[in-house]
Amino acid sequence: MTVTSPAGFDAAGIAAGIKRSGALDLAVVVNRGPSAAAAAVFTSNRAKANPILWSQQVILDGVVSAIVLNSGGANCFTGPEGFQVTHRTAEAAASALGIAAGDVLVCSTGLIGDQLDGEVLEEGVLSAAARLSADGGGDAARAIMTTDTKPKTVVVDGDGWRIGGMAKGAGMLAPGLATMLVVLTTDADLPSGELDAALREATRVTFDRLDSDGCMSTNDQVTLLASGASGIVPDAAAFRAALTAACRSLAEQLQADAEGASHDIAIEVRGAVTEDDAVEVGRSVARNNLFKAAIFGNDPNWGRVLAAIGTTQAPFDPYLVDVSMNGVRVCHAGRPDAARDEVDLTPRATHVLVELHAGEASATILTNDLTHDYVHENSAYAS
Amino acid sequence: MTVTSPAGFDAAGIAAGIKRSGALDLAVVVNRGPSAAAAAVFTSNRAKANPILWSQQVILDGVVSAIVLNSGGANCFTGPEGFQVTHRTAEAAASALGIAAGDVLVCSTGLIGDQLDGEVLEEGVLSAAARLSADGGGDAARAIMTTDTKPKTVVVDGDGWRIGGMAKGAGMLAPGLATMLVVLTTDADLPSGELDAALREATRVTFDRLDSDGCMSTNDQVTLLASGASGIVPDAAAFRAALTAACRSLAEQLQADAEGASHDIAIEVRGAVTEDDAVEVGRSVARNNLFKAAIFGNDPNWGRVLAAIGTTQAPFDPYLVDVSMNGVRVCHAGRPDAARDEVDLTPRATHVLVELHAGEASATILTNDLTHDYVHENSAYAS
Repeated sequence: MTVTSPAGFDAAGIAAGIKRSGALDLAVVVNRGPSAAAAAVFTSNRAKANPILWSQQVILDGVVSAIVLNSGGANCFTGPEGFQVTHRTAEAAASALGIAAGDVLVCSTGLIGDQLDGEVLEEGVLSAAARLSADGGGDAARAIMTTDTKPKTVVVDGDGWRIGGMAKGAGMLAPGLATMLVVLTTDADLPSGELDAALREATRVTFDRLDSDGCMSTNDQVTLLASGASGIVPDAAAFRAALTAACRSLAEQLQADAEGASHDIAIEVRGAVTEDDAVEVGRSVARNNLFKAAIFGNDPNWGRVLAAIGTTQAPFDPYLVDVSMNGVRVCHAGRPDAARDEVDLTPRATHVLVELHAGEASATILTNDLTHDYVHENSAYAS
Repeated sequence: MTVTSPAGFDAAGIAAGIKRSGALDLAVVVNRGPSAAAAAVFTSNRAKANPILWSQQVILDGVVSAIVLNSGGANCFTGPEGFQVTHRTAEAAASALGIAAGDVLVCSTGLIGDQLDGEVLEEGVLSAAARLSADGGGDAARAIMTTDTKPKTVVVDGDGWRIGGMAKGAGMLAPGLATMLVVLTTDADLPSGELDAALREATRVTFDRLDSDGCMSTNDQVTLLASGASGIVPDAAAFRAALTAACRSLAEQLQADAEGASHDIAIEVRGAVTEDDAVEVGRSVARNNLFKAAIFGNDPNWGRVLAAIGTTQAPFDPYLVDVSMNGVRVCHAGRPDAARDEVDLTPRATHVLVELHAGEASATILTNDLTHDYVHENSAYAS
């Protein structure tokens, strides 16, 4: 059920001593081949962590043999010393695995602005490399957790090939892939160009539509590694569908474990002129603190939905909009419809339907409510 | 110290029975002249409440004799019946005061999507009209409160003329003037065109730079009424300076009473290429929930400042940025500087200085922290 489920991958997750707690904090995933094709997408934040700066260079040739991921520190805004730590991490993996450092991706997650100890990282990589195995995917998934309460993994089977994956991320989820580290593996045989196209298509409609708290991270990276070990070149459409399904599962696992959340909210926007409009409208609701606090309080305050979407540029008439919550239409044509007390918001799964009546396009944005626990976790994170 | 401090204005604030609590909920301010020049600015939200739709027509000729404001209901997304209630409110004031309904502004604040009772409004207006006095400004300021814990008023004296004002607003504060109702009065003698220019200049650098929670309201309105009763035509620059000072005072009072806030945060951005860039950068920090939760926890988590500003389009190099918190420079040139524990975030007044080193422009955005009380108040508001 994880990155080592497809053939051709070994992994390990260890406690390198980066986290003071002694928890697992370093993961290595190795692609044993025969192919080393890869693709990756990165945060669109201009403030990028050192491992992002490194990995963006590594991925240029579409060849990746291994990826090292650490929790316990983001290695962001740590200057040239921080970049050297990332470089040293890749060199350690290359040395231990007999590969080129230029084929090693690095991901980090944790507090911004703290230096990581290069020696601890190096020793950790060497130790993890010695424990690599086809059973190591579970430990790897645990080693990348920060405030996550559970590991997130997935397997999707194709016709003779398979996709596996792991993810971490419990806060800062936002478009542009925020504090989200994802590794997807496949034993299908595909060149990096096709992996890249499939990955961008999949992330566009999954991770990019998860917007837990509107904050975009400095460290997000979604990586896809293909070993070709199945010897099968999959049908392109089938592979894209499977990859999208894997990404959707991981995105939903991220949403379900978002920091402090008590509701998983799907904001479905229908009747937009374009899909981009639908996304913009959905996102405006997902980022509205007043709406999110109301959902926490099981309060179907639909006026806050309309106030949010009124701030967008999407073409529609606010006074023709219908809003339903968990199947009850509380607003019709910009006026009160069913009584608020007919809406039951006690289930964790919450569905908000916004019908714009302006066109045929639709999109769904996933978000969470704004809770006391969210405030607590994020006020205490650094201390 | 309020709207009746300048000569030529009477006001009243009464309990009309709109709020179930029996608290004051309806205010009337009358301009006795000799001038009836006025200006107003409105929310830029496309979802506009009925009183906004009404008042935008009334202000077109720059003549206003009275303004009626109610708390206890926003009269937004209430359909044609809702608009009729606004119209009836204005007609009641006109009838009681012997003026034209087309010279009566109406403002409402409260829950979106609930119908107001037109009869209660009408009787309330008649009752308030009977109690108008030059001492009524204090009651008027109390009658427009919703979750505000205290009335907000101001007086600024000029050379033989005076500006008075009152404001309400404790949530939904955002650019575009969110759930903010403000009435400013002056006995200076100025035509509506000059009032309008002065008001837009003042709001641009005061209310528009207050962004408590990133949410924009459907009902915001800032109104300036000039009676000319002083007989003095003020120096234009002096009047604008005084009006800006009055707006700044009210904006700071709004910030200080923002729902659930425990810190008043001034985000000062220096070294931007343009003032608009500085505003965009400051606003990105003001809207970052992770940053706001950290401040609540007295945690100088400067990485969240850099992660926020990295999402902007403003031209600067994130790796040249300095960040100071309450006078301690915690980040220099994109790297850690002074230790986090040197920063004391226990005072309510919090200063975050972001130096971009890209140009000469600057701006300050006012915001608040994200607290348990904010979540509580906004999850329970409708119930």
